[in-house]
Amino acid sequence: MSDSARALLHTRPRVVSLGLPIFAQDLTRLAVPVVHAEWRPPAAGDPRLLAALERLEQRREIIERANAEALARLVHGEPVLVDCRPAWEALGLPPRTVLHAGPPIEWPRMCEPMRAAIVGAIRYEGWAANDDAAAALIERGEVTLAPCHHWQAAGPMTGVITPSMPVFVVENRAHGNRAHATINEGLGKVLRFGANDESVLARLRWLAGEAGPLLGAGLRTSGGLELRPLMAQALHMGDEMHQRNLAASALLARALMPHVARVGQKHGAVARLAEFIAGNDQFFLNIAMAAGKAMADPAGGVAHSTLVTTMARNGTDFGIRVSGTGERWFTAPVLTPVGLYFPGFSAEDANPDMGDSAIVETIGLGGGAMAASPAVARFLGAGGMAEAVAATDETREICLGEHPHFRIATLDERGAPAGIDVRLVVETGIAPLINTGIAGRRAGTGQVGAGVVRAPLACFERALLALAES
Amino acid sequence: MSDSARALLHTRPRVVSLGLPIFAQDLTRLAVPVVHAEWRPPAAGDPRLLAALERLEQRREIIERANAEALARLVHGEPVLVDCRPAWEALGLPPRTVLHAGPPIEWPRMCEPMRAAIVGAIRYEGWAANDDAAAALIERGEVTLAPCHHWQAAGPMTGVITPSMPVFVVENRAHGNRAHATINEGLGKVLRFGANDESVLARLRWLAGEAGPLLGAGLRTSGGLELRPLMAQALHMGDEMHQRNLAASALLARALMPHVARVGQKHGAVARLAEFIAGNDQFFLNIAMAAGKAMADPAGGVAHSTLVTTMARNGTDFGIRVSGTGERWFTAPVLTPVGLYFPGFSAEDANPDMGDSAIVETIGLGGGAMAASPAVARFLGAGGMAEAVAATDETREICLGEHPHFRIATLDERGAPAGIDVRLVVETGIAPLINTGIAGRRAGTGQVGAGVVRAPLACFERALLALAES
Repeated sequence: MSDSARALLHTRPRVVSLGLPIFAQDLTRLAVPVVHAEWRPPAAGDPRLLAALERLEQRREIIERANAEALARLVHGEPVLVDCRPAWEALGLPPRTVLHAGPPIEWPRMCEPMRAAIVGAIRYEGWAANDDAAAALIERGEVTLAPCHHWQAAGPMTGVITPSMPVFVVENRAHGNRAHATINEGLGKVLRFGANDESVLARLRWLAGEAGPLLGAGLRTSGGLELRPLMAQALHMGDEMHQRNLAASALLARALMPHVARVGQKHGAVARLAEFIAGNDQFFLNIAMAAGKAMADPAGGVAHSTLVTTMARNGTDFGIRVSGTGERWFTAPVLTPVGLYFPGFSAEDANPDMGDSAIVETIGLGGGAMAASPAVARFLGAGGMAEAVAATDETREICLGEHPHFRIATLDERGAPAGIDVRLVVETGIAPLINTGIAGRRAGTGQVGAGVVRAPLACFERALLALAES
Repeated sequence: MSDSARALLHTRPRVVSLGLPIFAQDLTRLAVPVVHAEWRPPAAGDPRLLAALERLEQRREIIERANAEALARLVHGEPVLVDCRPAWEALGLPPRTVLHAGPPIEWPRMCEPMRAAIVGAIRYEGWAANDDAAAALIERGEVTLAPCHHWQAAGPMTGVITPSMPVFVVENRAHGNRAHATINEGLGKVLRFGANDESVLARLRWLAGEAGPLLGAGLRTSGGLELRPLMAQALHMGDEMHQRNLAASALLARALMPHVARVGQKHGAVARLAEFIAGNDQFFLNIAMAAGKAMADPAGGVAHSTLVTTMARNGTDFGIRVSGTGERWFTAPVLTPVGLYFPGFSAEDANPDMGDSAIVETIGLGGGAMAASPAVARFLGAGGMAEAVAATDETREICLGEHPHFRIATLDERGAPAGIDVRLVVETGIAPLINTGIAGRRAGTGQVGAGVVRAPLACFERALLALAES
C-alpha cells in the first residue's frame, strides 16, 4: 500500500460527488463533507447524438471558422429604424395573404388564438364579413398563409400581418438587408394575443390610418434612428428587451417625438400618438424584433456553421433554423410557459408558447441577458439578482461568444452571451431560456400573463443530426 | 498556564488586526494568516465631539422618536410636477433679486463661476448692459442676493434664478408644500456652470419665451405628473439621479409629450421643445432637485432630530441644515471634486464643489444609491459593480433607515439608505459621498467634467456640537 493510499485511512474522507444528487444527500446525512457537482453525460448519453457530435468534432476547424464568420455577422449588424409603411408596400405582400408567427403550419393544426387572430385580420381587411366566412376563405385556399420569417418580418405572439397593416422598416446598414414588424398594439385585448373584437379592429384601423403614416413621415424626416446604441443603452437600464422594454420604449419615444412633432399636421394626431406610445412599456418590443431579424438574417447560410439563426413558435410547434442548413426548419412540439398571471387567469388558461419574439434571444438578449434585468428574474425560481446572473451564466455555456456591443453593467460590462450553438445545446442539454408573454388558449381572450419557457431540445437534436449528415 | 493558553503555543497564530493596516501588513509579510478589520476610534477620538455624542446619548429615546418622525416625513413625501412658471410668479421673487446655490455668501467671497453667472443673469434681465455695470449694482446693494434654499427653490451648480426665469413647480401632496427649480439648460456652456456669453443668454430667452410657457401649459393640462413612482422606476433603470438622469429624463419626456403636443399651437414649438428635451440626458436633474427639496423641507424643524435636511454648496462653503436646529446653517470650506474631465480640461481647471444638487443625496439618491447605477461607479476607484455596492454599503452606516419607495434592483429590492444622521457621520468619520458636475474655475468656462466629492466633516461636527448644546 502506498503512503498516499495509507493516508486515506488516517484522514476523514472528503468527497466530490458527480451526477445524481442522491449520493451527496446520503453523505450529507452521514455528516461527511461533500461537494456536489452537477454532471450529466454529454447529450444525455444518446448514442445517435454522440455519434453526430463526434462526426462534427472531426470537422472542428472548418466549423469554428464558419461559426466565427456567422457570429461576426450576427453581432456587428447595424440596425437603423428608417420607416413605417403598409406591409403591401414595404414587403410587397400580395392581397389575400396573411403572415403568422413561427415555422410553417397548416390551418387545421393552428392553436385557437392564432386562428382567432387570422380571422380577425381577415375581417379587418374586409375580405370577409364574419369569422365563419373568413375561415371558409382559408379552407378554400383563397387566403394564403405564410410565416413572417419567410417575408423579412418577425411577428410577436400570433404574429399576424396583413397587407394594409403598417410595419416598421429596419435597415441593417452593415449588410444592406431589411426586416419588418408591426406596431405594438399594447397589452390585454389585442390581435397578437388572439383577441379580435371590434375594439381590437378599431385600434388596428387607427394604427393604419393615423399612427403609422405619422410614424413613417417622422422617421423619414429623421434620416433613421440607430437602434444598436439605443438597445445597448436600454440593456444598461434594466431591459432585456423581451419581457421588459421600458427603457428602450422611453428612449425611442424621446428620440422619435421631435421628428413626429415636426411633421404632424392633423390637429391632435401628434398628441394621440404620443399618448399611445407613452402608455405602452412594451412599445419597443416589435422594433427589437425587427432589429433582431435584420441582424440575424445575414448570419444565415454560412456553410458548416452550427449557429442558430432563428427560434420561432406558432403555438403548436417550436422551430429553429441554423446557419449551415439555411432555410430549413427543425421543429418539435412547443412547451407552455411558466409564469405570473393577470388577475382572474391561471396556468389553465395558458396557450403553449407562441411568437417570433424569440428572435430577441437569438441575438443575445432576452432570457440570456437576464443579469441586466434583475426585475425580470421574478419569473424564475426565487428571483432576484443571483437568479438573474445564474440565467446569464447558464446561457453562456451554450453560446459561441459574448456580444461586443450589448454589455451588462451589473457584470462589470461583460458582453451578453451571443450566438447559440446547436452542438453546445445538445451536448450540455441546456435548452435556451426564453422570456415571453402568455396568450389565453381560448380565442378572443388576449394576453393572460407573462413568464419563461424553454426551447424544446428536440429541435436542436434534429438540427444536429442534419448538420452531421450534411 | 491554562490549557487554552498552552494550546496557543502549539498552534499557529491566527490574528485579527484592528485599526492601522501596518500591523496586518507586517504579519502578512511573515506569512501569518491575518484578518484586518478597519477600525477608528469614534469621532477620531476628539474629546469635545465624544462629549457631545455622550450628551446626545443621554437623550437617546427622545432623539430616536424625533428622527423617526423626521425620516417618515422625508421618505413619504409625494412630489408632483404641476407647473412651470416664471420665478416672479411662482416664488413671488421681487425685482432685482438673484438667487444662488448653497448657504448664504457675500459677493466678495463668491467663486468666479458664481459671480459670472450672476452678472450674466443681470444682463439677461436687462438690469445692466455689461458685466461691470452688473457688478456695480451688486456692490451698491441695488441687487439683492439670497440662497435658493431660502426661497423654496434648489439651484444646480451656481444655482442662479432671477424673476423672469421659468421654474418647475413641484407640489408635495403629502404635506402641501411646494419647491421649485429652473429648466436644465443642457451641458457645456451654460449659465449654471458660470458661462454667460450671448449664446447662453439666447437659450435662457428661448426657455422663458417658448419652452417654459409650453411646459407650463402642458403640465397644467396633465393635472400633474407624479414624480415619486417615476423616480423609483428610474432608480431601477440605472439612474442614481444626480450624475445620471437618463432614464428619468426619458420617462419624463415620454409622460410629458402627449400633454405638450395637445396644447402646442405655435408652429414648430412642440418640435423644438421635444428636440431640446431629447438632447439632454440630465434634463430631469433639476426636477429631481425640486422634488428633493419638496420632500426634504417638511422633515425640517422636528425638535431634537439629528437628521440632515439640507446639504448645499456655493463653490466657497459647504453648508448643512439639520432638522432639530431648523433654519440654521453649519458651514465649512468646500472640497474640490475628483473626477473625469472633458477633452481639453484637467483637475487644474476645476472649481471647488458647487450647487444645491446635493439635495439628491439628502433624500437618499445620488452617491448613496450608487449600487443602482454601476455605470456611475467609474468615477470611484476601480469602478464597476463591487465599488458601486461598497458606496451604498458605506452610506448605510450613516443613515437612519432605508427608503421604502426608492429600492435597488441589484440589491434584491433593498431600499436605498436614507436619512443622514449627524451623530453617525461624526461617530464613524464617514462624510456623505456626493456625485456632481465640475465647473471650470474661471468665469465663462462652463462645465469641465464630472466626479465625486465628500461633504466636509466639519459641517457635521459643528451641527453635532450645536445639537448637544441645545
